[in-house]
Amino acid sequence: MSAERLDTTFVSDPPKTLRLDEGLRFRTGEVIAPFEIVYETFGELNADRSNAILVCHALSPSAHAAGKYKADDPKPGWWDGMIGYGKGIDLDEHFVVCVNFPGSPWGTTAPHSIDPATGKPYGSKYPWVCVEDMITAQARVLDHLGIDKLEAVVGSSLGGMQALMWVVMYPERVDAMICIAATASVPVATIAWHLIGRKMIMSDPAFAGGDYYDSTNPLRGLEIARMIGHMTYLSNEALEKKFGRRRPGSSRQLQVDSYLEYQAKRFAKAYDANAYIRVQAAMDEMDLADQFGSLQIAFQNFRGKALLIAFDTDWLFPRIDIARLHGAMRAAGIDATLSEIITPNGHDAFLIDYPLITPPVKSFLARR
Amino acid sequence: MSAERLDTTFVSDPPKTLRLDEGLRFRTGEVIAPFEIVYETFGELNADRSNAILVCHALSPSAHAAGKYKADDPKPGWWDGMIGYGKGIDLDEHFVVCVNFPGSPWGTTAPHSIDPATGKPYGSKYPWVCVEDMITAQARVLDHLGIDKLEAVVGSSLGGMQALMWVVMYPERVDAMICIAATASVPVATIAWHLIGRKMIMSDPAFAGGDYYDSTNPLRGLEIARMIGHMTYLSNEALEKKFGRRRPGSSRQLQVDSYLEYQAKRFAKAYDANAYIRVQAAMDEMDLADQFGSLQIAFQNFRGKALLIAFDTDWLFPRIDIARLHGAMRAAGIDATLSEIITPNGHDAFLIDYPLITPPVKSFLARR
Repeated sequence: MSAERLDTTFVSDPPKTLRLDEGLRFRTGEVIAPFEIVYETFGELNADRSNAILVCHALSPSAHAAGKYKADDPKPGWWDGMIGYGKGIDLDEHFVVCVNFPGSPWGTTAPHSIDPATGKPYGSKYPWVCVEDMITAQARVLDHLGIDKLEAVVGSSLGGMQALMWVVMYPERVDAMICIAATASVPVATIAWHLIGRKMIMSDPAFAGGDYYDSTNPLRGLEIARMIGHMTYLSNEALEKKFGRRRPGSSRQLQVDSYLEYQAKRFAKAYDANAYIRVQAAMDEMDLADQFGSLQIAFQNFRGKALLIAFDTDWLFPRIDIARLHGAMRAAGIDATLSEIITPNGHDAFLIDYPLITPPVKSFLARR
Repeated sequence: MSAERLDTTFVSDPPKTLRLDEGLRFRTGEVIAPFEIVYETFGELNADRSNAILVCHALSPSAHAAGKYKADDPKPGWWDGMIGYGKGIDLDEHFVVCVNFPGSPWGTTAPHSIDPATGKPYGSKYPWVCVEDMITAQARVLDHLGIDKLEAVVGSSLGGMQALMWVVMYPERVDAMICIAATASVPVATIAWHLIGRKMIMSDPAFAGGDYYDSTNPLRGLEIARMIGHMTYLSNEALEKKFGRRRPGSSRQLQVDSYLEYQAKRFAKAYDANAYIRVQAAMDEMDLADQFGSLQIAFQNFRGKALLIAFDTDWLFPRIDIARLHGAMRAAGIDATLSEIITPNGHDAFLIDYPLITPPVKSFLARR
């Protein structure tokens, strides 16, 4: 297949589904069977299957990482600024795979999926997914595609945490790793913000312990929790610049208030609360240093190269923590590069500052 | 009266009440009558009534700023580290007044007080208080005590905002002002955190629009909102040091989680939700630059001296904003000093770092 190139993007293939009849075994020991994994691919796998890049998505995106399904789609995939013909991850050279991870509500068997045993959504019975389960599902897709070795695994935020987990779980299957705005464990402040958001969701009577699918009540707890999440993605600079204390028109409502409400309502309508609390908890539970005794031990078998990118105004994953991760990787004998990017855009910079992220990514991928 | 001096504190007088039979008129135009204002005094007013310092309290404290009512009280007043014999605000020299402001639930007529017209708590009918109303109530107490001019007005956080409002509303009544960890308007990020907390409280069915006094249901929304507030008082450094990712004993619950729950439950049991949302909203509404056209105009009539104290790890009131306030005061011709304190304790430093705050406060008050 050769993709139709549009002005700045391209027409992508529809999502594909890998069905595991025997199911997926989660790290908790629970099995969901059958289990369907939705993924997308972009570009062409070369003859010796050596040009595959796995892009891991973050909390809210899907497997639709780039391109438009139809030329007149209003928006392309979530990382279209990075992935495309001639872009930072150049589809003229690379074959990109993006897998919707277990727990996420975008196609892969999720808490809102129907349990064939009951004919009702899994709801509260869906396992508490771990980052390890995300890697397991991605590996099953790569097996299915006949890709033994990745040219690179790339991710930002929770996607970056997955990239780190990849080189720990499958060090021999990865030649290069790019981890953007992420570390091997979330800082305690981020954990606390996540916890507070989850408490909001769970204290909402409409949440009904996670079995709310029979009701059409809006989940106000999810909306407010999303506002917290949203705040952690923005820098104070960005907030000041975007809103200051403006009140639109003659309204008494501050612009930042109506913005948070609008974004939160939009998110809560689309995203599933059971997915949200599980995916955030998975992020919070990952702690490679704790799980392996030290980061050096965790990374000891990875012999590929690594690129870490930090944003100076990111306070979800502060640059200092990424610098420490860089030190630990170097101490583990990894050829690791740290690129610090100055931007007012906070954690969200990975979805905004393509002109700043593209050069280090491009030159890292080109390096042999 | 001469106070009995204890080891590091002293025995303070019980709270006093000023009753306004004609009531208090709020800035909104609403009047609550009668209106009672609770205040405490510490030390001795000198013969020419020239040694009075008004200490303005922040969101959660009361008029009990220092000392113990009885020698065996478990805890002294909330700023006992600063106010006392031989301390930063030395009661051997100064007479200190602290007034419980309107909106706060600690004695002054508040949302939970009984409306004589109905025999029920004011609840949702209590006015949305402004910082100006707090100053008005304090001025009434000073009038009552025969204090025309303050040697100083001092406050931290919302108390510091009141100190700033004092020199704007009554510039001729103040000789010196000390504003710690506060600015003339809260940054938009802080407003957003406050808004999210208020939404949480108001979305709680148990809140019942503010008329919840007949019920004994715990207000989970207030507990969770308090966790947000608590987070904004702590620096990331303090969180890491205090908790890291520790889980006490064999528990799966993170220590930061049980700490936030414990603190939030304690707060929510004691503090009133209607008070909380009103006092925070008062903070958010204050914006001297907007109200007067510019800070220079706001401060133009104040001819006293000013001390501003900033904490480097405070992200509720970032040092950069306090530096800007300092610039504006200097531009308004005020003899203003900025003292930047390096501390890992974030916004809460004003309740912790007495050895660091005492020297600049003491030397500022001694300066003639």
